[in-house]
Amino acid sequence: MLNFNDILQARERLQGVAHRTPVLASKQFNEQEGCEVFFKAENLQRVGAFKFRGAYNKLASLNPEERKRGVLAYSSGNHAQATALAAKLFGVPAVIVMPEDAPQIKVAATRAYGAEIIFYDRYSQSREDTGEKICRERGMTLVPPFDDYAIMAGQGTSALELLEDVPELDFLLTPASGCGLLAGCAVAAKHLRPQIRIFGVEPETANDTWQSLRKGERVEIPVPKTIADGLQVTAPGKLTFPIIRELVDDILLVSDQELISTMRFILERMKILVEPSGAAGAAAVFHRKFDFAGKRVGVVLSGGNVDLTKLASYLSETGA
Amino acid sequence: MLNFNDILQARERLQGVAHRTPVLASKQFNEQEGCEVFFKAENLQRVGAFKFRGAYNKLASLNPEERKRGVLAYSSGNHAQATALAAKLFGVPAVIVMPEDAPQIKVAATRAYGAEIIFYDRYSQSREDTGEKICRERGMTLVPPFDDYAIMAGQGTSALELLEDVPELDFLLTPASGCGLLAGCAVAAKHLRPQIRIFGVEPETANDTWQSLRKGERVEIPVPKTIADGLQVTAPGKLTFPIIRELVDDILLVSDQELISTMRFILERMKILVEPSGAAGAAAVFHRKFDFAGKRVGVVLSGGNVDLTKLASYLSETGA
Repeated sequence: MLNFNDILQARERLQGVAHRTPVLASKQFNEQEGCEVFFKAENLQRVGAFKFRGAYNKLASLNPEERKRGVLAYSSGNHAQATALAAKLFGVPAVIVMPEDAPQIKVAATRAYGAEIIFYDRYSQSREDTGEKICRERGMTLVPPFDDYAIMAGQGTSALELLEDVPELDFLLTPASGCGLLAGCAVAAKHLRPQIRIFGVEPETANDTWQSLRKGERVEIPVPKTIADGLQVTAPGKLTFPIIRELVDDILLVSDQELISTMRFILERMKILVEPSGAAGAAAVFHRKFDFAGKRVGVVLSGGNVDLTKLASYLSETGA
Repeated sequence: MLNFNDILQARERLQGVAHRTPVLASKQFNEQEGCEVFFKAENLQRVGAFKFRGAYNKLASLNPEERKRGVLAYSSGNHAQATALAAKLFGVPAVIVMPEDAPQIKVAATRAYGAEIIFYDRYSQSREDTGEKICRERGMTLVPPFDDYAIMAGQGTSALELLEDVPELDFLLTPASGCGLLAGCAVAAKHLRPQIRIFGVEPETANDTWQSLRKGERVEIPVPKTIADGLQVTAPGKLTFPIIRELVDDILLVSDQELISTMRFILERMKILVEPSGAAGAAAVFHRKFDFAGKRVGVVLSGGNVDLTKLASYLSETGA
């Protein structure tokens, strides 16, 4: 089980390496919603997302011999860049396994951090087989995206910092995907402030954790359709789910349209760019998925990696 | 003449009222340019621009009797919202004089801060006549956009904060329009670090201050065509220009295309939104208008108010 000391240790390792991201507020948001919201701007984190915290902490937790042999991750998203940068900072090799049809911009960004990209054909090969084979051949260690205590501990440092800056929060909201961020933040926040209430936020179509909490066991769903590409995981993790069951109040659900209108508000009013997945927590407050009136609400804006062409299309849509 | 004590006094008045905006960096920008750049993110200031500092300091400098009668500004841009918010915070009336064809979004934003908007027909009326008449009738005080020592002192607090955070800057760059920001920052920076070199940055088409420095006197140009709508002033101020001549090294010039590509880079890589005018300082570094190699460069990102429809069009343009 993950405990608070793991998060303190992660924080020590991340000192001077990860950014201590600012906590931002929007007076207009607060006036409109009648509550006080504190946004932890992890979109301003290195690689543009909280994922750097977990990946770096995972590498730091390996013994020098393991680390020297290098690390491997499956991802075409923020976790890929986070693992690649962490490996670069430790001066060890990284292999990132991506589908052949991964967006060129993500391939280029990951390569820019010095990682080797190995492609697999998602119609004829499994990424697990591809990855395991390379790990075996090269003695590399897999860096899982969420289902790992060192990863969760790293992600939890974001809530630790937020509660240091704003100790008297009534609520904490984070996006929920594999639930590494949510689990790490829940452990940190409940330790520092036992009375805090915690929500994860999922897209309506990607409600695997919402279903799992209701069923009392991990529910697997088909790959969901949502613009929140960081939240398309099909089930909460084996290690994360027991923590969610114990510490998290519930999952709130938001639509893609609500994610877009929230991104737009945050861009227009707060002048910062969040990706659709990263806006989930804010969308739940903004679109009143729970009554937060009069409360102090912490929200992790988890990432800001959006392709500018896609962003242009979100901005052009009407009725958002 | 403006002196450093005016800026210290402004800082005291702004304490707890204006945001102390963060200083951001982009490792990628630094690696690409071979210099260390420190961005003072005034796009994250209240009303989304540095203008709030000057307007609030101006209102604070009035005597209570003057202030009670209210203030008036001519502007359809950031100065309008800054003056409206400052008046709201002091609980005094504000009139903003705008052309009848001002963008609806700017009218609404200014009204949202509680100001009264009075329109004039820019083809048959002068805004000065319209404004002076109201000031006379209501006993209101004009809040000038730049040519005023209290305004300059307020704007200078941004450089004061930047140099407190990063004392050993070699260069400081700000956009140049009427030169209130540039003059205030120059006085603050030269006091704290006499060896610092200071540049203002103008669009190529709006090079009134560049021309003025070369001629040794204020040059007036026709209203320039540029996407940097905050930098369309036609001449440096009577009070600002002597300060620019004394303390500023030179003006650097950038094209609209360079402003757009810089906005895009800052949005994509640094995850923050700057308006075209606000990106001028960064554009001069990014497009190498001077050899900053190996140097520590402070850049004021002066504002972030962009209409999202316009932003979508900037993002869709190719070749930027």
